[in-house]
Amino acid sequence: MSSNDNRLQMFQYIKRDTLDSVNIDPLQTAGLLTQAAKDALIEWGDGYSVCDYCNGALDLVKKPPIEEFVHKALPEFLGTDAARVMNGARESKFAVMHTLAHTAAKSGSFDNYVIMDGWAHYSSKVAAECAGLDVVLTKKPEKEVMPEDFLNAIETGIEERGKKPLLTLITYPDGNYGNLPDVKKIAQISHEFEIPVLLNGAYAIGRMPVSAKELGVDYITGSGHKSMAASGPVGVLGVCGEEAAAQLFRKSVHNKVKEVELLGCTSRGAPIMTLMASFPEVVQRTRLENWEREVASAQYFIKRLEDTGQFVLFGQQPHRHDVMFFEAPGFFKISEKVKRGRYFLYDELKEKKIHGIKPGLTKNFKMSTFGLGKDKLDYIADSFEEILKKYDEL
Amino acid sequence: MSSNDNRLQMFQYIKRDTLDSVNIDPLQTAGLLTQAAKDALIEWGDGYSVCDYCNGALDLVKKPPIEEFVHKALPEFLGTDAARVMNGARESKFAVMHTLAHTAAKSGSFDNYVIMDGWAHYSSKVAAECAGLDVVLTKKPEKEVMPEDFLNAIETGIEERGKKPLLTLITYPDGNYGNLPDVKKIAQISHEFEIPVLLNGAYAIGRMPVSAKELGVDYITGSGHKSMAASGPVGVLGVCGEEAAAQLFRKSVHNKVKEVELLGCTSRGAPIMTLMASFPEVVQRTRLENWEREVASAQYFIKRLEDTGQFVLFGQQPHRHDVMFFEAPGFFKISEKVKRGRYFLYDELKEKKIHGIKPGLTKNFKMSTFGLGKDKLDYIADSFEEILKKYDEL
Repeated sequence: MSSNDNRLQMFQYIKRDTLDSVNIDPLQTAGLLTQAAKDALIEWGDGYSVCDYCNGALDLVKKPPIEEFVHKALPEFLGTDAARVMNGARESKFAVMHTLAHTAAKSGSFDNYVIMDGWAHYSSKVAAECAGLDVVLTKKPEKEVMPEDFLNAIETGIEERGKKPLLTLITYPDGNYGNLPDVKKIAQISHEFEIPVLLNGAYAIGRMPVSAKELGVDYITGSGHKSMAASGPVGVLGVCGEEAAAQLFRKSVHNKVKEVELLGCTSRGAPIMTLMASFPEVVQRTRLENWEREVASAQYFIKRLEDTGQFVLFGQQPHRHDVMFFEAPGFFKISEKVKRGRYFLYDELKEKKIHGIKPGLTKNFKMSTFGLGKDKLDYIADSFEEILKKYDEL
Repeated sequence: MSSNDNRLQMFQYIKRDTLDSVNIDPLQTAGLLTQAAKDALIEWGDGYSVCDYCNGALDLVKKPPIEEFVHKALPEFLGTDAARVMNGARESKFAVMHTLAHTAAKSGSFDNYVIMDGWAHYSSKVAAECAGLDVVLTKKPEKEVMPEDFLNAIETGIEERGKKPLLTLITYPDGNYGNLPDVKKIAQISHEFEIPVLLNGAYAIGRMPVSAKELGVDYITGSGHKSMAASGPVGVLGVCGEEAAAQLFRKSVHNKVKEVELLGCTSRGAPIMTLMASFPEVVQRTRLENWEREVASAQYFIKRLEDTGQFVLFGQQPHRHDVMFFEAPGFFKISEKVKRGRYFLYDELKEKKIHGIKPGLTKNFKMSTFGLGKDKLDYIADSFEEILKKYDEL
C-alpha cells in the first residue's frame, strides 16, 4: 500500500462527534431518524437499491409501496392533488420556478421574476436565479411579514416591470425566527392578481399540521432531511390543480414515462425508503394535539429564558413554533471580557454537550426546541444560566 | 391507533428480498456498499448530519475532510481541474448543459442543441430537454459508435441548423452493451469544431480507470450509486479548464458562497459520506491491473456462455467491460412453448436466487459481471445451462 493509499484512509470510519450532544440546531432537531428509518437505511443502503423493483417510473413502484406513498399518502398529507418525492426542498422550488419560466412566462402576462418575503431562505433565491428569474423581496420585516408587505411588493413589481411576477413565494416559517405569516391572506392577495403561490414549508411540513388546500396555496415544498426524520437529500413537492400538475410533471419527448423536471427519477435509493419508514411517526407528530404540545414546550423554554432577564425573543408573540431567535445581551457582555472572545459560548456549550449554536455567535442566535422534551429543555436553560453565573452576568 | 395509522405501517420495516440473491443488474453490481460505507451510513444517517460541520459551503467543510475530498482527491481521480459532488450523474449533465445554454449560447456561434451517440442514456436526453436543448443523435450503431458517426452528426447538425451544437456528449460505455467508443478521437473531432465534450461515465468512473485529461474531454460525470459503491442519490462532476469551471460553478448574486447550478448545496447528508468512505477501495479497484482482472472475468463468462452455442454477445469483440448484452435464442424458444411464456426465465432464475434480468425478457438481455468473481460467474453460467437442459434446449 502506497503512502497515497494511506492518505485516502482519512475518508473512512469518521466519527460524528456531535452524536452524543443535545442538538438544538433548527436544521437537525426534526431530521433525526426514527428507528424504522434507521432500519430502512441499512436494508436499502446499497447504491440504487430501489431500482431492483422499478419498471421505468420510480413513483409507480408497487413493491415497496412507493406508488401508494407518492400518489396517495403524500398528497393526502400535504393537502394537494399530486405530489412527488424530490432531492430536497430547494430542488422542488427550482422545479416549480423552472416550469413556470417555461410555461406561464410564454403567455405574455408575466415577467421573469418572483415575489418573496424578506426572510426567504437563500435557497429560494438561488433556485430563482438558476431558473433565470429575478427576485423581488417584500420589505425586511421588523417583527413579522405582513400580508400588506406582499401586496406592496406585488404592486411595486408590476409598476416597475410592467407585468406581474410568475410566482409568490412564502416562507412558512422562516428558518431563523420561526415566525408564521398569515398564508391564507397572502395567498388570497396573490390570487387576486392571478399569481400562483408557493409555500416553502421546509420547517413546517413534518413538524406541524400543514395543508396546501386549507391554506389556499398552489405549490408546497418540504424537506425530508430537515423536518421529516429522513436521511437526506430528500424532499417533497405537492401541487394543486390538474393543469398545474400536468405542467410541473410533464413527460419527456424522448421517453414517455420520464418526467422532465425530475430528470426522469429523483430519490432512487435509501433516502426515499427512510422518508417512507418515518412517515407514520411524522403523520402522528404533526397531528394538532401533538404539535400543540411542541408549541407549549417552546413557550415554556422561552419563558424560562426570558425570566432570567438576559434573553429577548425576536418576532411574533406569543411564539408558535419550535424555531426561535434570541438576543442575549449577557452572553455578549461576557464575550467582550473573556480571552476566547466571541468563541467562549461555543466552548462552554461544547463542554456541556450542547451543539447547534454556530461558533462565534453570542449576541444573538437561533435554535430549536423540537422533540427535546422538558428534561432536555431544562438542561439547556440551566446550562445557559450556569454560564451566565460563571461570568457574573446573573 | 386508527385504521389509517395501521395502513401507514405498510411503509415501515420493508425487507429487500433481492438481498440474498446474486445480483447481475448492471445498475447494481458496482453500487454495493463497502463495509466502510455501511459504517458511514449508520454514523451519518440523520437528516442533514454533515451540516453540523458547515460554515456555509458544503465543499469547504474541513472536518469531516470534504474539502480535501472535493478539491484534491476527486479532481485527481477524475483527471480534471475541478470537481464537485452532485445528486447524481443526470443532475451533473443537466448542470453542464444548463450552464452552456446560459453562457456559450449567448456568444452567437452556437445553437441550442447537443450531439449525442445513438446509445445515449435517456437521462442525457431528458437533461438536455430540461435545459431547453434539442438532441441530435448519431446514427444508431450496428456494433459500436464510431468517431465518423459523431463527425457526420456534427456536420449534419451545422448544415441543418446553421450553427454548431453547444456540446458533444459521449456515453462511455453505454449501459446496455458495455461498448467503449474511441473517446480520444471523438473528442478531437469535436474540438476541431471548438465544441466542448462531456463524457458520461456513469458505468465507467468507479469501475475502470478514467481520466478526463488523458481522454481529452472537458466535462466528466459519474454516478456514486451506480459505480462508486455509494448510497444514492449521489454523483460526481469534473471539469477541465479554469474558465469552464468558473462558469459551471458560478456563485449566486444573492449569496457569495453558494453556487447557482448546485442550488447552493447538493449531497448534504449520508450519501457524500458513503462516497468518501468507499473511495479508497474504489481507487484501488479502478487501478489498471484490477480492472484488467474484471475484464478477464467478463471474457471468461462470455466464453462459457458462447461455448453452449445458445448465447451470442452483441457489440465489440473482444469485449472490454463488465456490462454485456446477449441474444439467447434457446431461452426464447422455451418461452414460446411453456405455460408461463416469457416470464419463465425470471421465475427460474428467482428459484436459483439470481436477480437482475427484467421479468419478461428472454430473447435478449443485459447483465453485468462486476465484482462477482469466478465462483459466482460459474454458478450463473451453470444455472443458465441447467435451465436450457431442463427444457431440452441443450
